[in-house]
Amino acid sequence: MKHSVCMLIFPQLTALDFVGPYEVFAKAGCFDLYITSAVTGNIEAEGGLVLEAKYDFQTCPPCDILFVPGGRGITSLLANHHYISFIKKQTANAKYITSVCTGSLLLAVAGTLRGFKATTHWRSLPLLQLLGIETEDARVVVDRNRITGAGVTSGIDFGLQLTALIVGTDVARTTQLMLEYDPQPPFQDGSPKSAAPAITHYVEVKSQELFNARKHIIKTIIDSDIP
Amino acid sequence: MKHSVCMLIFPQLTALDFVGPYEVFAKAGCFDLYITSAVTGNIEAEGGLVLEAKYDFQTCPPCDILFVPGGRGITSLLANHHYISFIKKQTANAKYITSVCTGSLLLAVAGTLRGFKATTHWRSLPLLQLLGIETEDARVVVDRNRITGAGVTSGIDFGLQLTALIVGTDVARTTQLMLEYDPQPPFQDGSPKSAAPAITHYVEVKSQELFNARKHIIKTIIDSDIP
Repeated sequence: MKHSVCMLIFPQLTALDFVGPYEVFAKAGCFDLYITSAVTGNIEAEGGLVLEAKYDFQTCPPCDILFVPGGRGITSLLANHHYISFIKKQTANAKYITSVCTGSLLLAVAGTLRGFKATTHWRSLPLLQLLGIETEDARVVVDRNRITGAGVTSGIDFGLQLTALIVGTDVARTTQLMLEYDPQPPFQDGSPKSAAPAITHYVEVKSQELFNARKHIIKTIIDSDIP
Repeated sequence: MKHSVCMLIFPQLTALDFVGPYEVFAKAGCFDLYITSAVTGNIEAEGGLVLEAKYDFQTCPPCDILFVPGGRGITSLLANHHYISFIKKQTANAKYITSVCTGSLLLAVAGTLRGFKATTHWRSLPLLQLLGIETEDARVVVDRNRITGAGVTSGIDFGLQLTALIVGTDVARTTQLMLEYDPQPPFQDGSPKSAAPAITHYVEVKSQELFNARKHIIKTIIDSDIP
């Protein structure tokens, strides 16, 4: 029997947050994927790429795995009760609650990471901490059945780890070979731990406005004690 | 001025072949992306994900960069004169002709790799050689203005290298940090060079039928001396 995965998409998601795990699950061949949003139809990701949601919050069945990607569009979802209610509903049934990148901010706001260690995109770690979540310095954090990946490209590592956990290492390893996942980054700037300080500073400055907007929303949520 | 990229999509492409480079280009912020297919509208990738083509072969302008992903759907395109004509037309104007995964088979059939070294998904290297192309054992092969990536996930390495080449290493390095591209594959099976022989054998057997179908089409093309 295949494992069902509810894969959430929303306006202004980061396409690669979603497609990394998607491709792992699709190639592994033992998952049924439910690509879901608040409403069915075409959804525009960051940069203009359009993806189709085939299920909405009414038609997506309770799934074994809930997966939430991140992206710029997470900001407005943090105060969107349709999305938060859907996450709570799926969490009640799912065996694994998962995210990549800033998807974990939405899981945290929905209360599903309470008492679990988790991670997010490096730039958003203070925001996850502000939401009361203990963060761990790892590419993929596995804490019981909560599995969260770091920024964007971590979704491939995350997808392979989740596949290994659920259906075994043989399937994960053949999937890795099918995807020729033998990464050779041309630079050493993939993490603030290894990046040149000037590169990190540039990205921090460029993302400060988005960071502030999210911090403001999160503080409002905490102050109003919702949810 | 931004650099224009014609990003080809087609039925049964591998979504990650496309979205790896897409995300690098989108985040780099110095590319205009033209997501193009034979006809505009929704296109189903391997595994069921639907992506939208915003341009068709008539409306996509001549671009600075041509990018072709791979996937199961490449097989039928090898004998599709609409696609081959479009690739020839774009090649006439483009400064860079590029591919990831089995996209290079289509470039080769269109004659645009003649006299250039190139690569493809490891499983398809003999097919690229059968088409008269000298292959190179590298994750990303740069031969003058022909830049080809290996299988699926190589698209991220490819995208960063192309960005560095066209707009400089600073942009590529900040993009790498934004995408938190600090890969940590959970296994060593990302290449037949490092994979367990039993894993490689399994993938070879599983893909033999597709390999044979492609080989047959390529032999027919060679025999009929088309194009």
